Amino acid sequence: MATSTIERLIAELAKLPGVGPRSARRLALNLLLQREKRIPTLVAALSTALEQVKTCTSCGALDESDPCTICSDSTRDAALVCVVEDVADVWAMERSRAFRGRYHVLGGTLSAIDGRGPDNLRIPPLLSRVANGEVREIILALSATVAGQTTAHYVAERLADSQAHAGHAVTVTRLAHGLPMGGELDYMDDGTLSAALNARLAY
Amino acid sequence: MATSTIERLIAELAKLPGVGPRSARRLALNLLLQREKRIPTLVAALSTALEQVKTCTSCGALDESDPCTICSDSTRDAALVCVVEDVADVWAMERSRAFRGRYHVLGGTLSAIDGRGPDNLRIPPLLSRVANGEVREIILALSATVAGQTTAHYVAERLADSQAHAGHAVTVTRLAHGLPMGGELDYMDDGTLSAALNARLAY
Repeated sequence: MATSTIERLIAELAKLPGVGPRSARRLALNLLLQREKRIPTLVAALSTALEQVKTCTSCGALDESDPCTICSDSTRDAALVCVVEDVADVWAMERSRAFRGRYHVLGGTLSAIDGRGPDNLRIPPLLSRVANGEVREIILALSATVAGQTTAHYVAERLADSQAHAGHAVTVTRLAHGLPMGGELDYMDDGTLSAALNARLAY
Repeated sequence: MATSTIERLIAELAKLPGVGPRSARRLALNLLLQREKRIPTLVAALSTALEQVKTCTSCGALDESDPCTICSDSTRDAALVCVVEDVADVWAMERSRAFRGRYHVLGGTLSAIDGRGPDNLRIPPLLSRVANGEVREIILALSATVAGQTTAHYVAERLADSQAHAGHAVTVTRLAHGLPMGGELDYMDDGTLSAALNARLAY
């Protein structure tokens, strides 16, 4: 049986997403067996992160400065704002190197089950950014799931409402739906095939 | 793209067993999004563990004292020693509450692929414990895998050799092989069925 100190470490590790009691024991044991080498570096990385990492008040991403590196990068197009669900999506978009505008992190999708309504998402800050007048296009880059698309639809409506009140017009776009690169046709689900067919382009 | 501080945290988390780059990002993000609440408790648990946890010089298990709680518990039978591969196996045996003797952790199995020979396992300390004369029975509780059984065979031979030199005799036993509790016959592999059949008992 593990001691209280070890049990406490296991309990902390078990709070991580996707880590059950069994894998938490495995992680704890792995750290403890090489504790002199592994624990100090992990503690240092965690402590530095706690000290340095901030949430950008403009876009909601995580960075060591606020406003973040992306929001304060003058080479990036401030008029083009990509709306995403989570910080992980900002990282995914940045890895693709396909986008040179700025971001806006909503902080999730609308979800009745998880009790996340419009007030829990960063929608008012998005409307403020648009109201400031420097945004030309809003790209709704939400997941192609029911939750993602419902949220995109809601955000688009809120943007349209605020546009009707204000004078200037902002273009609202969304990511294309279709075959993922490398995707084989006979492995695609019906929804993807329908979307790809409906959005077909001249060759 | 994540900052260097976040990248460093992701790299540290990716050293954990079974955690790839993708899940390390997920773990890091989960910690960072609730950093004020989650990081201090995890750091405290890790630091306390580093400070308090010791490897028992007698049995090789992890504990806050050396010799460990089990080795220094006089109500447990010091003459009965259960040889296991890892500290995790000590925890598993203790959870079963089926054993009231003491343990000896080998620290793995013999493995040519992983470069673990007899010198990398805690076999000499086991022979010393036996040579001290207070051990009556050694239970080889190694995994029913090729690696586990090869190691068990090797340990049994080394024990027999050392017995031949010394005067006193120690009984060497192994765990029974057969159907696991709750196991359905038609889901059992051939090896298990053969083992269970060969070791059949009078009803």
